Amino acid sequence: MHFSVTILGNNSALPAHGRHPTSQVVTFHDRVYLVDCGEGTQMQMSEYKIRRSRIRHIFISHLHGDHWLGLPGLINSYGLQSRKEPLHIFAPGPLEELIRLQMDCVNTMLPFELNFLPLEPGSTGIILEEEDLCVTAFPTDHRIPCFGFKFQEVHKKRKLLPQKAQEYGIPASFYNALQKGEDYRNRKGEIIHNEWVTEKPVRAKNYVFCADTRYDERLLPYITGCDLIYHETTYLHDQLEKAKARYHSTSIQAATLAHKAGAKRLLIGHFSSKYEDLGPFLAECLPVFPATELAMEGTTYII
Amino acid sequence: MHFSVTILGNNSALPAHGRHPTSQVVTFHDRVYLVDCGEGTQMQMSEYKIRRSRIRHIFISHLHGDHWLGLPGLINSYGLQSRKEPLHIFAPGPLEELIRLQMDCVNTMLPFELNFLPLEPGSTGIILEEEDLCVTAFPTDHRIPCFGFKFQEVHKKRKLLPQKAQEYGIPASFYNALQKGEDYRNRKGEIIHNEWVTEKPVRAKNYVFCADTRYDERLLPYITGCDLIYHETTYLHDQLEKAKARYHSTSIQAATLAHKAGAKRLLIGHFSSKYEDLGPFLAECLPVFPATELAMEGTTYII
Repeated sequence: MHFSVTILGNNSALPAHGRHPTSQVVTFHDRVYLVDCGEGTQMQMSEYKIRRSRIRHIFISHLHGDHWLGLPGLINSYGLQSRKEPLHIFAPGPLEELIRLQMDCVNTMLPFELNFLPLEPGSTGIILEEEDLCVTAFPTDHRIPCFGFKFQEVHKKRKLLPQKAQEYGIPASFYNALQKGEDYRNRKGEIIHNEWVTEKPVRAKNYVFCADTRYDERLLPYITGCDLIYHETTYLHDQLEKAKARYHSTSIQAATLAHKAGAKRLLIGHFSSKYEDLGPFLAECLPVFPATELAMEGTTYII
Repeated sequence: MHFSVTILGNNSALPAHGRHPTSQVVTFHDRVYLVDCGEGTQMQMSEYKIRRSRIRHIFISHLHGDHWLGLPGLINSYGLQSRKEPLHIFAPGPLEELIRLQMDCVNTMLPFELNFLPLEPGSTGIILEEEDLCVTAFPTDHRIPCFGFKFQEVHKKRKLLPQKAQEYGIPASFYNALQKGEDYRNRKGEIIHNEWVTEKPVRAKNYVFCADTRYDERLLPYITGCDLIYHETTYLHDQLEKAKARYHSTSIQAATLAHKAGAKRLLIGHFSSKYEDLGPFLAECLPVFPATELAMEGTTYII
């Protein structure tokens, strides 16, 4: 099982110090989900060997340009590459008009279905349900409607003990049923109880992208006990008032929220261009929440 | 006098091989003019130390995304940097609606004047006249309305010979008048003829950006005798039919046009992503037009 997040952009709106605006990819098994798509995302994908053809779903948190201006170029490139797979985009409603207008202006005809799924301001709920993964959107406290996204593994199968199953003479064709928790009845009519040949499933894991937001304890229901939280830290804590005024968070605020949530790990990003050195962000977070890491471009964090 | 062009993006629509979509800056004395603004232009400006604050005029050739999708991010960054200077954008008319709609969606308030100057499809003429430089727009043969831009030095002053001027006792306060061609009358009433203390002006130079275009001899009036022409070469010459069908040009077509124009130098770019090695472009052009150079990102070509 592979479940990870790779950072493509870790800077706030004004690109600086070689850092790019927000974008990251969540990889789950062999699927890739794109979360935000700042300017230059498609180049960053090439730089870091992201398999962009595996992306079927894109999640855009809000309509500030640094979170979506790479999307028109990416869509255009998919067209030039003769993509056939539909592309589903979860985003605040007005994005569809912005993108369609650009395409209409130059008579763009895409060779694939482009499907926009609008996120209603302030709404919460599951927006994508797949067999083994579900994605929930929830509002964050930003200047304009903005959403975080929780990626949650679901339907965990029981862990098969192949040697035990063989000892009981259970055919491989029944292994799938065993993983779903079924007992096996052999030719003699004997019941082989499921727990004799399987173990409890590994706990389902999750990752939460908290988007741009002020410090907001209303996020706790979505992040409590999480394996990995991404939380913005646009500013160091001495800029607390500025952070509040601009609907952003500080290092210590992000660490405090992760601590209150009892999260396992915290990833911080969306750094203001005023900071070239990111060390102080980590230095401020670690005493509050020791399992903090800087979101570094090109780095993959296993969940 | 400094007159040059710096390449920020030399690739066609699909970014590849570390190459970026079209963008270049023309530097004239201490002013910087931006020509096209593909995705990632603002990052390329940082990479190559372009003084973006010096840009007051932007020229967008046409509305295919690879020629303008970096513009919303650049405008946004100017806003975040508290720019005060007006910004003038010459572009096909619909661009203003596209940009304003994006800004309106998120209530963007810019601290500077953003002035769009629409280019009418098919029109030709001087669009910018400054004391020492004028810019002419002209249509090229592309799938949608598209413009080339000619940057022409004007009002050249005569070249002052300071030692001669001193010998004749002409005060420095009169040097500007000398450069404009005036004679000097000294206290004794003697006439110091202008040609005794100045030389003919250096020939006014020019640079022509031919944008995206098919091979089109209707461009000759704008490029004949030019110091430097930029002409696209999306394909090598074996792809002649594809180039025609897609409203682009081949290497040999660009070299042929430069030859017919009696241009001094040719810069080629807008390379298709199918070519990683650009050597063959040069190899095909040189026999037809020896003064051909590859437009390389980060390189400045003195005009």
